[in-house]
Amino acid sequence: MSDAKKLRTHPQYELLYHPSIPGRGEFIRLCFEATGVPYTDVANEKPSGYDTVQSICMNTSLTSADSNPPVFAPPALRVPGAGADGKALVIAQTPSILMYLSERLGLAPDDEAATYHVYQLAFTALDLNNEVHDTHHPLAVAKYYEDQKDAALVKATDVRENRLPKFFSYFERTLRFNEENGGGEGKYLVGGRLTFADLVVWQVIDGLYFSFPKEMEARKKEYGKLLDGFYESVKQEGGLKEYLKSERRLPYSQGVFRYYPELDRQ
Amino acid sequence: MSDAKKLRTHPQYELLYHPSIPGRGEFIRLCFEATGVPYTDVANEKPSGYDTVQSICMNTSLTSADSNPPVFAPPALRVPGAGADGKALVIAQTPSILMYLSERLGLAPDDEAATYHVYQLAFTALDLNNEVHDTHHPLAVAKYYEDQKDAALVKATDVRENRLPKFFSYFERTLRFNEENGGGEGKYLVGGRLTFADLVVWQVIDGLYFSFPKEMEARKKEYGKLLDGFYESVKQEGGLKEYLKSERRLPYSQGVFRYYPELDRQ
Repeated sequence: MSDAKKLRTHPQYELLYHPSIPGRGEFIRLCFEATGVPYTDVANEKPSGYDTVQSICMNTSLTSADSNPPVFAPPALRVPGAGADGKALVIAQTPSILMYLSERLGLAPDDEAATYHVYQLAFTALDLNNEVHDTHHPLAVAKYYEDQKDAALVKATDVRENRLPKFFSYFERTLRFNEENGGGEGKYLVGGRLTFADLVVWQVIDGLYFSFPKEMEARKKEYGKLLDGFYESVKQEGGLKEYLKSERRLPYSQGVFRYYPELDRQ
Repeated sequence: MSDAKKLRTHPQYELLYHPSIPGRGEFIRLCFEATGVPYTDVANEKPSGYDTVQSICMNTSLTSADSNPPVFAPPALRVPGAGADGKALVIAQTPSILMYLSERLGLAPDDEAATYHVYQLAFTALDLNNEVHDTHHPLAVAKYYEDQKDAALVKATDVRENRLPKFFSYFERTLRFNEENGGGEGKYLVGGRLTFADLVVWQVIDGLYFSFPKEMEARKKEYGKLLDGFYESVKQEGGLKEYLKSERRLPYSQGVFRYYPELDRQ
């Protein structure tokens, strides 16, 4: 599809999220980038873009914007023309935005049962994302890491030793199930083509490689289909290959995925 | 609708969850109970029912049951006849199950924008549910509370002092937005009738009243529409009034919502 065609057939999607970090916004960016559908990353692309994000998503008034109800926190998605009375639609919550986009960007399966299986995978990976966040902030989001380091060591050890194997086993078995039943060839979690579940699971694995390189290297032997085969093949999907090398792919820093050597396997 | 009619028009929904606790299964029970749609709470109603739950949701094989992919953890929903080739459908993840049921039980709005606003509310309340769980288990799910009590005191204080006001403010403002725009009369978060967002938010508030009675009593003055008006009126909806007095409504004990006086406001 030409860029002109895409601009004609898609509304101008606006991602409202914090600037400079991949964070939870990255799950949404990957949907656009994999499918080549244009979007505006408001806080990163527009002068005073973050002011816009804050005024819509981090206010204390009765509306987010454009006659939509309040938003709890970024990320949110704004879609001009898609709301009530031709106004903009503003929706929040990562899984909700992913579902909305997946139907429009071709990242959901055609049949309903498979769609709910995509949902359960994506939501489980988002749960893992939250657990990884808590490895460096187990006691309070608003406190510094240095002020909860002892607790973080205990939490990170539990996540690495007990939680990661449980999640990885589940995703690995799902890949094998699909290989045997849906023809994913080890490249897709559900069915025979890319869905947003693949993107969400991939992003969490990628973040884990950044945060816990030693742990992941050791686990790669146990969960090779997931952490090697699937992980490498998703990088080649659609627009991702170009995106992952581009400046639009923000580096990990002080967001969900952080690298503290002391929290990794010793 | 008569009970006989309901039995004819709905499949036999099976809730697969741990026995004896409300837990995350309660969000799903409330959907059935509010609408009067029959369901089987497998672990609580059937001899050796928990064996069935474990064999489907807590195994390490390539399938959950009936040619469905694996399940990460309970709750799951099994719907005979709704899957591929007339087999049973098995789906997991609380938000996914709630969405599936809401379309069939009349707990979702008619228009799409409002539906996504229901999703974002329900998902935000489920996030709060997870944060409340972590007040007594901040370091490791598999460790005893007594072995992480110091950390729990810090976490619970942060949740009570910083997180609850943020969530409550959001829900309260959404109620007020809807009252001014959708006609919910303070009884509904989105539109003019009950949705599953109301049930999920209500259940988390109810659990908080159990876990943090002093904190909630103090907060009731600040967020009266939510913690008093809305909370009381939802109890009167459809089948809930009868359900909440019945033996099917399981008492809180050692699940997500626990009462440790030392974690409450002092």
